[in-house]
Amino acid sequence: MRILILGGDGYLGWPTALYLSAKGHDVGVLDNGVRRQYDHELGSGSLVPIETLHERVRAWREVSGETISLSPGDHLDADVVYEAIGGFAPDAIVHFAEQRAAPYSMIDRKHAVYTQTNNVVGTLNVMFAIGETNRDIHLVKLGTMGEYGTPNIDIEEGWLDVTHKGRSDRVLFPKRPGSFYHLSKVHDSHNLEFGCRIWDLRVTDLNQGIVYGQETEQTALDPRLATRFDYDAVFGTVLNRFAIQAVLGRPMSVYGGGSQTRAILDIRDTVECVRLACETPADAGEFRVFNQATESYSLAEMAGVVARAFPGEADVEYVDNPRVEAENHHFVFTHTALESLGLRPHLLSDTLLTSMFDIIERNKGRVDLDALRPTVDWRQPSNLSTVRS
Amino acid sequence: MRILILGGDGYLGWPTALYLSAKGHDVGVLDNGVRRQYDHELGSGSLVPIETLHERVRAWREVSGETISLSPGDHLDADVVYEAIGGFAPDAIVHFAEQRAAPYSMIDRKHAVYTQTNNVVGTLNVMFAIGETNRDIHLVKLGTMGEYGTPNIDIEEGWLDVTHKGRSDRVLFPKRPGSFYHLSKVHDSHNLEFGCRIWDLRVTDLNQGIVYGQETEQTALDPRLATRFDYDAVFGTVLNRFAIQAVLGRPMSVYGGGSQTRAILDIRDTVECVRLACETPADAGEFRVFNQATESYSLAEMAGVVARAFPGEADVEYVDNPRVEAENHHFVFTHTALESLGLRPHLLSDTLLTSMFDIIERNKGRVDLDALRPTVDWRQPSNLSTVRS
Repeated sequence: MRILILGGDGYLGWPTALYLSAKGHDVGVLDNGVRRQYDHELGSGSLVPIETLHERVRAWREVSGETISLSPGDHLDADVVYEAIGGFAPDAIVHFAEQRAAPYSMIDRKHAVYTQTNNVVGTLNVMFAIGETNRDIHLVKLGTMGEYGTPNIDIEEGWLDVTHKGRSDRVLFPKRPGSFYHLSKVHDSHNLEFGCRIWDLRVTDLNQGIVYGQETEQTALDPRLATRFDYDAVFGTVLNRFAIQAVLGRPMSVYGGGSQTRAILDIRDTVECVRLACETPADAGEFRVFNQATESYSLAEMAGVVARAFPGEADVEYVDNPRVEAENHHFVFTHTALESLGLRPHLLSDTLLTSMFDIIERNKGRVDLDALRPTVDWRQPSNLSTVRS
Repeated sequence: MRILILGGDGYLGWPTALYLSAKGHDVGVLDNGVRRQYDHELGSGSLVPIETLHERVRAWREVSGETISLSPGDHLDADVVYEAIGGFAPDAIVHFAEQRAAPYSMIDRKHAVYTQTNNVVGTLNVMFAIGETNRDIHLVKLGTMGEYGTPNIDIEEGWLDVTHKGRSDRVLFPKRPGSFYHLSKVHDSHNLEFGCRIWDLRVTDLNQGIVYGQETEQTALDPRLATRFDYDAVFGTVLNRFAIQAVLGRPMSVYGGGSQTRAILDIRDTVECVRLACETPADAGEFRVFNQATESYSLAEMAGVVARAFPGEADVEYVDNPRVEAENHHFVFTHTALESLGLRPHLLSDTLLTSMFDIIERNKGRVDLDALRPTVDWRQPSNLSTVRS
């Protein structure tokens, strides 16, 4: 298949590009490089050195003999999207090209507006480009399990059968997310479901959990193929951050009471889930939602897993929760769709965290300890002074 | 109370400003005049001549002795919003300042992106301005009954009690609207509910039905106080358009089978509902939703009401439905909240449509018949050529 990856330079976009290429697909990447700009803005960076996108693509050709087509460009510019789709003629588009950090969206008004505009308008541009170019192109869109929030009922895969006052319907699962970033993905989902109704678009919305890990079979082939590894309090995902804190001899910072529960998955499952979604397209007019997460852990439990795996001391520090969220809540979610397509999950309990510790150990000289401190308080409309201090 | 009205130059914003002023409130208006620009773009216009906003405010001072403060400006410019709120120091903000026509949002990609950006970012700017200025300011936000779509269950006021797999929760009512415009208001509602959770904002979301009528007690006092009366297929609301078609001796154009059912209300109820919402603010942290509509009629029934009231012949013409929507559907909605605050609805069956016919008769020389023809097809991603032809 011909698969165009929007945001193919990011933490997950890049390993997905490599994986799909290794699996025999013709892969193209569109990326505007803005993830590297966020580093510039925040004074942060990947723990593991990463190459430029051009160098990554050259290295992959050297290592595998496979070519990834490269389109530098911004999906906020509709011309770029129409040209990329017209030129590459994909069978599927995998859409990672969104600002993806909740704390970044909560910095202040400008960052909230940027996040929602970038994510919602970018997705509208892609929808219209498909609608005007070739409606059979299957759009595989990255959503997040955070769209659901923490309802007191079990979370289904995007849709819910309800009975009310003696009548029944299948409705979009009600959502109540916890940041302007998560809200942007809720907006996307509503827009996309509408696109399926009016233009018979084929859409798969992947509501992904929090990803951990830094290596896939392909990124491990050559250091130039490494994907980024974020540890800062804005872009670093929680399990990765705990592992880094442990190696550095810093306490693992658990926000609030630590009983908040998150859906998680291994980076190797992310790339496989995207492949499974691409290779089994949604029907024309179908808005298909998969919960792309394999298990759930509370923050305190995750810290416990890291502590047990780490060969030295690994302490926990409970810090004031900068987020506004439920700490003791029901959290059960259905995640059978991808498994029924063939996903064989890597579970956290079976994962050799030691390889992650080794990667961190080799790069620990690159850490800026200040970046670990949470600086974005959900209760404050403006956090710019603490973020930039 | 001090009440700032965003979008106070529009079809409903202006009569609301007059009504609240007449009821003894100190009223300010912020408007960027963009509704008049849409006329310029589409070659359309109000059936009834309207004055400039400055002249309207002068006329109101002459007629009533009351002053309405005027701030020309665009709420997409955050500085304008912060200055207006800081300067006027309102107790309540009534937010009408959104692009409000479904067909306009469906013209093409640019109009969809414009509608969602204008509406969502404008509302974010207002939320942040309240969050940073004074969180006790009560935001009364115009939503639409169209946010719900046509679920097969009864529509409640914004929230729904659900039981699923033996567990229960009160969730945001699931929404599945029928245009990029309606979607923009769904996005707003999600953002606002989050603002109530994180900053204890006080928000009332008024999910309004389709408004009919052109006169209120105040606009009738002087021709310079008239509000706009739209009859074109893009901005004209359905019952008003039927009345105009009847007077012009044109068939009333019913889209599709005509069994589609809409929530409606009289313009005199709109202004009273907004007053009731302002005078009984939401609690701190409360996201309160009122269904601001008093009854429901199918399109065919509305045409029947107009035909029976009209003294001459009034025919119906069934035209291909340019929208993608269910035509035979369940439609029952709760609307008790505003009535429990004191609303005494004007019902369509009791309304003297003859006064509306008189207004139209006096202005019928101003009609552009071409503007009645629907030119925006939901199934087409781009309708620019038919809209501009």
